[in-house]
Amino acid sequence: MSGYVAFDAEKVIDYVTHLGHFFAEGETLSCYEFGDGNLNLVFRVQDTQRNSIIVKQALPYARCVGESWPLTLDRARIEASVLRRHGEICPTTTAKVLHHNSELAVTILEDLGQLHILRGELNQAHTFPQLSQDIATYLAKTSFYFSSFYLEPSEKKALVTEFTNPELCAITEDLFFDDPYRDTERNHFPSALQASVNALRHNKALLIEIAKLKAQFLNAPETLLHGDVHTGSIFVSAEQTKLIDPEFGFFGPIGFDLGSFIGNLLLNYCAQHARIEALPKRRNMQVYLLDCIASTLSGFYATWLKLAKTQTRDLSLQAEGYAEYFLTKVLQDAVGYCGCELIRRTIGLAHVTDIDDIEDDTARLEVQKRALQLGEQLILNANKCHTTEDVYQLIISFVN
Amino acid sequence: MSGYVAFDAEKVIDYVTHLGHFFAEGETLSCYEFGDGNLNLVFRVQDTQRNSIIVKQALPYARCVGESWPLTLDRARIEASVLRRHGEICPTTTAKVLHHNSELAVTILEDLGQLHILRGELNQAHTFPQLSQDIATYLAKTSFYFSSFYLEPSEKKALVTEFTNPELCAITEDLFFDDPYRDTERNHFPSALQASVNALRHNKALLIEIAKLKAQFLNAPETLLHGDVHTGSIFVSAEQTKLIDPEFGFFGPIGFDLGSFIGNLLLNYCAQHARIEALPKRRNMQVYLLDCIASTLSGFYATWLKLAKTQTRDLSLQAEGYAEYFLTKVLQDAVGYCGCELIRRTIGLAHVTDIDDIEDDTARLEVQKRALQLGEQLILNANKCHTTEDVYQLIISFVN
Repeated sequence: MSGYVAFDAEKVIDYVTHLGHFFAEGETLSCYEFGDGNLNLVFRVQDTQRNSIIVKQALPYARCVGESWPLTLDRARIEASVLRRHGEICPTTTAKVLHHNSELAVTILEDLGQLHILRGELNQAHTFPQLSQDIATYLAKTSFYFSSFYLEPSEKKALVTEFTNPELCAITEDLFFDDPYRDTERNHFPSALQASVNALRHNKALLIEIAKLKAQFLNAPETLLHGDVHTGSIFVSAEQTKLIDPEFGFFGPIGFDLGSFIGNLLLNYCAQHARIEALPKRRNMQVYLLDCIASTLSGFYATWLKLAKTQTRDLSLQAEGYAEYFLTKVLQDAVGYCGCELIRRTIGLAHVTDIDDIEDDTARLEVQKRALQLGEQLILNANKCHTTEDVYQLIISFVN
Repeated sequence: MSGYVAFDAEKVIDYVTHLGHFFAEGETLSCYEFGDGNLNLVFRVQDTQRNSIIVKQALPYARCVGESWPLTLDRARIEASVLRRHGEICPTTTAKVLHHNSELAVTILEDLGQLHILRGELNQAHTFPQLSQDIATYLAKTSFYFSSFYLEPSEKKALVTEFTNPELCAITEDLFFDDPYRDTERNHFPSALQASVNALRHNKALLIEIAKLKAQFLNAPETLLHGDVHTGSIFVSAEQTKLIDPEFGFFGPIGFDLGSFIGNLLLNYCAQHARIEALPKRRNMQVYLLDCIASTLSGFYATWLKLAKTQTRDLSLQAEGYAEYFLTKVLQDAVGYCGCELIRRTIGLAHVTDIDDIEDDTARLEVQKRALQLGEQLILNANKCHTTEDVYQLIISFVN
């Protein structure tokens, strides 16, 4: 880390020029920073021919998490490595890494400027027909090929070590599993929600399930997760879906990424009650979101099962019926983590614009109550789900 | 590893003399090797005053596992580190490390020559009243203090990396979970057992349970295990119990060590049918073994639960009722691993003298059939156990 220096636009151009192979020699380059500035600097560098690349640099602190919070630069290595590893499996749905320098915590990425962040699109009620299948395929393939079904145990153990990510995992451990269920300064929610929050915190059955989910997060290096599959980590267009920002990547339970994604669709679903006044339009959007969830679940399940049946290299794990057993457990985990995401995004530190941008206080409060109740019920009933249809029916029974 | 050289008695004396602090200056030292020579050299060094120490050196191969099999010297580091870590928690039941040199793969240990290896003692129908409580306390305390209930997640992740032990784990993965359930050259058993072995291998419900247990072994870094708690890894006397040889140590499922220990008591139980002819004496020994199992289970459970109730530092895992849920899962895992141990010690590569030293072929075959059937039933019924009493009743229902 001794060689670390934070970039500005001029330094970025120098760095890129020095590397030499991104632009034609002699081209005039321009550069501007456009990140949100909380965790990383994000620059776009372009030439006069409209060729462009993204230069992302990790900052040694996280302004967004409470007060100034020092944060390892190693997350830049993790992020670039996850993108590369996942990119080998799913090149079409993973942002492409063009260069990485761990000392400077700098990663150069393909420019996805022609795409848009999914969260903003959903907030505007835009829909993407290929989204669910792309995400399902990405989650199934990456999680299968980095699991014990496929990797040699020694290969997997080495990767578990390579992707040990204690500081970023600690953020998830705190924000997902601890903070929402107790008073901390990091939480924030309107006082009108206090009674609902108190009810959660006194629900003993819920707290046992939270403990199981946290223990699983801590003790189940099943696969190389993205670690942060929310709708702000997904770029979309009518044709493309691209995952970005896996700096929370580590070996964890397969259901975590799947649950996070579905949780974010459900947050948007809840928010649409207050976002779209016209009932037919709202219905259409909500039906789209539910279809998207159903199709993510079934696509994930089918792809994973097919991979397990044809590509499993571990002899014992080839046992007839084991893959189905395993997938049921993954689904149950996903439902639980989905519930956690709904709760923590409503009352914890990191909210979502889907809900927070609702201007009317009363309408927003109703949405928050919906999200909390849905989250709670999913966590409490996760273990009743044995098929993707069970998961879908469980969701349906509590969203309407 | 460049500095590695295999010791002989003379080199051992030179090495110990050079270290300087184990014997009085000017003392005349004698040394002899008495290990079984399969994996390690084991020397006793003594002076004329009967002071003595043990010098153990790992060999870079394992003669016992099939043909000459290269084996990492890193296991000496693992072994010494586990002994030290467990020794901090349970000094009275862990062999004391006096010195370790990773480059030479040499560990100097307290001499436990006044104690005897438990397996041999049980084979002679000797009993040890304190054994179960000592093992229960050791397993409960070491597994609790290295679990997520107690360790900070970042501290635990660092230890998981430190104790990554791919080569030794691969031996367990193969011998426990793969080999017994398919034809390999490493297995050996009398042809008269082939029908029983075939029945196991065609039992689909069993193979799914084996897959679950293997996946758990691969994907559940719950605590720092000894990794090889059989009755040959335990020194005993009337007053003392000492664990040795944790070279298979790694972060794995808590039930593994508990199940291995109980499995070895049950192997001895099965063997006593052929070892002791006089029924009252045989009954006494078998009742002792069952009492020992019951008391290990209840002691483990009570100690663990008390630690969980009073020492859990993780906020979420303090949820009321979670420790009981977790312990039920540990018991079920233990029953499953116990069953695996019974099977693999009967038909796999590494047998036990409890059974193999039975001279009468017919009597030995009956014992082997008992062990296989017991192992199978424990694995198939593990998930029905919710209390230590359930486990005991399950065992009772299939041993008699």
